[in-house]
Amino acid sequence: MEKIEPNIGRIRRDIERLSEFTSPAEPGYTRISFSKEDRQAREYVAGLMRDEARLSVRIDAVGNLIGRRGGERENPAILIGSHIDTVRGGGMFDGVAGVIAGIEVVRGFEEREIRTAHPLEVIVFLAEEPSPFGISTVGSRAMAGKLPGELLTSLKDAEGRTLGAAIHEMGGDPERIAEAKRSPHDALAYLELHIEQGPRLFSTGIPIGVVTGIVGISRGRIEVVGRNDHSGTTPMDVRRDALAAASEIVLALENTCVKLDGVVGTIGRIDVYPNSLNVIPGVVNLGMEVRSLSESASHRAISLFKGELEGIRDKRGIEINFETQVSSKPVMFDSKMVGRINRACDSLNIAHLEMSSGAGHDANHIAEVTSAGMLFVPSKNGRSHCPEEFSTFEHICLGTEVIARTITQIDTEEVT
Amino acid sequence: MEKIEPNIGRIRRDIERLSEFTSPAEPGYTRISFSKEDRQAREYVAGLMRDEARLSVRIDAVGNLIGRRGGERENPAILIGSHIDTVRGGGMFDGVAGVIAGIEVVRGFEEREIRTAHPLEVIVFLAEEPSPFGISTVGSRAMAGKLPGELLTSLKDAEGRTLGAAIHEMGGDPERIAEAKRSPHDALAYLELHIEQGPRLFSTGIPIGVVTGIVGISRGRIEVVGRNDHSGTTPMDVRRDALAAASEIVLALENTCVKLDGVVGTIGRIDVYPNSLNVIPGVVNLGMEVRSLSESASHRAISLFKGELEGIRDKRGIEINFETQVSSKPVMFDSKMVGRINRACDSLNIAHLEMSSGAGHDANHIAEVTSAGMLFVPSKNGRSHCPEEFSTFEHICLGTEVIARTITQIDTEEVT
Repeated sequence: MEKIEPNIGRIRRDIERLSEFTSPAEPGYTRISFSKEDRQAREYVAGLMRDEARLSVRIDAVGNLIGRRGGERENPAILIGSHIDTVRGGGMFDGVAGVIAGIEVVRGFEEREIRTAHPLEVIVFLAEEPSPFGISTVGSRAMAGKLPGELLTSLKDAEGRTLGAAIHEMGGDPERIAEAKRSPHDALAYLELHIEQGPRLFSTGIPIGVVTGIVGISRGRIEVVGRNDHSGTTPMDVRRDALAAASEIVLALENTCVKLDGVVGTIGRIDVYPNSLNVIPGVVNLGMEVRSLSESASHRAISLFKGELEGIRDKRGIEINFETQVSSKPVMFDSKMVGRINRACDSLNIAHLEMSSGAGHDANHIAEVTSAGMLFVPSKNGRSHCPEEFSTFEHICLGTEVIARTITQIDTEEVT
Repeated sequence: MEKIEPNIGRIRRDIERLSEFTSPAEPGYTRISFSKEDRQAREYVAGLMRDEARLSVRIDAVGNLIGRRGGERENPAILIGSHIDTVRGGGMFDGVAGVIAGIEVVRGFEEREIRTAHPLEVIVFLAEEPSPFGISTVGSRAMAGKLPGELLTSLKDAEGRTLGAAIHEMGGDPERIAEAKRSPHDALAYLELHIEQGPRLFSTGIPIGVVTGIVGISRGRIEVVGRNDHSGTTPMDVRRDALAAASEIVLALENTCVKLDGVVGTIGRIDVYPNSLNVIPGVVNLGMEVRSLSESASHRAISLFKGELEGIRDKRGIEINFETQVSSKPVMFDSKMVGRINRACDSLNIAHLEMSSGAGHDANHIAEVTSAGMLFVPSKNGRSHCPEEFSTFEHICLGTEVIARTITQIDTEEVT
């Protein structure tokens, strides 16, 4: 099979060019979904799609930017996608690497005049990261038919703009949101290249991770209600210090997850009232999450953790309320797709490692629509969502070649 | 000796009336120093001073509101004072009880035609609580000659107004700030009634606390620098979670102070970056304080605590920086004054208890100028700086009677 030999200079140019669409008022690389920078970056990608990859470009009803290349047959298409929005103060590679890899696959096919039986689509999903509307993976959610129309009017950003109005500004057609939904009839397979965002590939020196599944996430909110007393006049033995109780809770979650295999747990958010030097904290709210590829391991972690909460409550005579929030099940990718990506790596003599994804992706939703697969390239020091986020352009080229090879496999299998 | 028999209805009326000067936009009772509500409340008190206590009213250079009653001699005067500004979301009694007690003493003397050899002054100190200028006890500080003129221009509120301009708006004369300074020549003694703000009197049922001293406060800022990694993709064993480290720090301070006598320690402030659900906290700043009437106990607590910080740093491979901030020494009140207040209680058959104050007061500064004394009345459930703050009007009457009796003692002693 022919290699497409991705053009590293072009990939680098595009990733660096996209990094320039960043909000000057914010730290690192900041291209929040629906922002002016997001729109400008999408314009740049649409230009690449049209001018270099010769794709016909459209924006679907939810606002996904889609470039399509015809195949010998009309449908179903093979999809390659990722996103270009960032978190606040994020990096240059998260999402962007996958979008540019998709475009590079098509540029490579164009240059080598490789035709496919199935149409190809390169998708820039709308708002993968947490958006100003408090929701993430907006575009892929709608493609899976899981963005209820009510949300378009009920979700508002800080300025009071509705999600529907924002989608309209991105070129979508919120009135026809249902038309964004895809099915196996029009989507044969989905592939996504992404940076690992963790240290495993980097620390082992293996260039490609073949993703077997995406962890499930259980999130909860813990309210700790103590009593805000004067810090100078309240003896130690009569205090009901909500921050001291919350500290025990943070350490209990850490300790629980350290002891279990295949589970990570984090308390990333803490809000303390009144948060004043001379007042013993009266109320603390914590945001916690547990992630695992194994539902039973997640349940075990949360059940052990809740037992610890009981102990802290009893010992301190303090009120602790646990409220389960979002809970997503683990996604296991189609084992046939995992096998294809493994074989593509083997046939290209590229070392690879099967692994799970600890982060959610658009692929979570698209896996409900069609057979989906993901591959990872190494993240330097495992860092992501920060300006230090870095993956080598060489690794992105390798990943792009693997995507191209996998597409050729899918395309050939299904036709013959 | 004659009792003044404080008028409970009048005391209640004044305290309740003052509670109505509260910012409608804020929670609880909120009369921040220099605010419109603070100015209006001072007008009300000035009215009481003039119309009911027959005091001659002036505002000194720093903006303290002072009502003076002549004595048989010109100087020095006996001072009674407290404050009427509040914290945000505070209570009805903190400060106000002492100001109204002072006015009631003079009203009682007037009604019973009790003349004193020394002039009496009732003082409403400017800005006892933390002010919008980041400084507290502004008025008493200036009376002790400890408000350097530079601060009048360098300290600014959120609107950019200087402290000097704000003092001018309160009727002070910032150009002549040095004239606010008092000395034993014009201040023979200082007495302050205050709510305890702690649970000791309330839980023992004793109505009067005779304050022997005010604890010293050592404050520090602790910066914990870990690494903000993705919460889903970073295994537990490679994390450098600044919030988990900070949690150990919070518990280390609590544990250190529980084990030592006569020391309280609090971490009341915590700021976490980025404080986002899916990011392991990278940086945490903590605001800590230790209070004790014993300097050596304070030093011991801080030294043990710093040892704990070393241990946490080493165990977690995390950066922990401790920066000492304000540090005030304990204030021991003149033992003669403590003796007089004890004797006044005894002669009135009022149960009393010697105790230290865990909170700072204007008396901290005035004790540098002249012989100072304080007495406490019980705080319901030990609460203060919150809308639930409550002291009975009966207890405030008892305290007022003790102040009057103590003044009579001082006045007689010194003349004879």
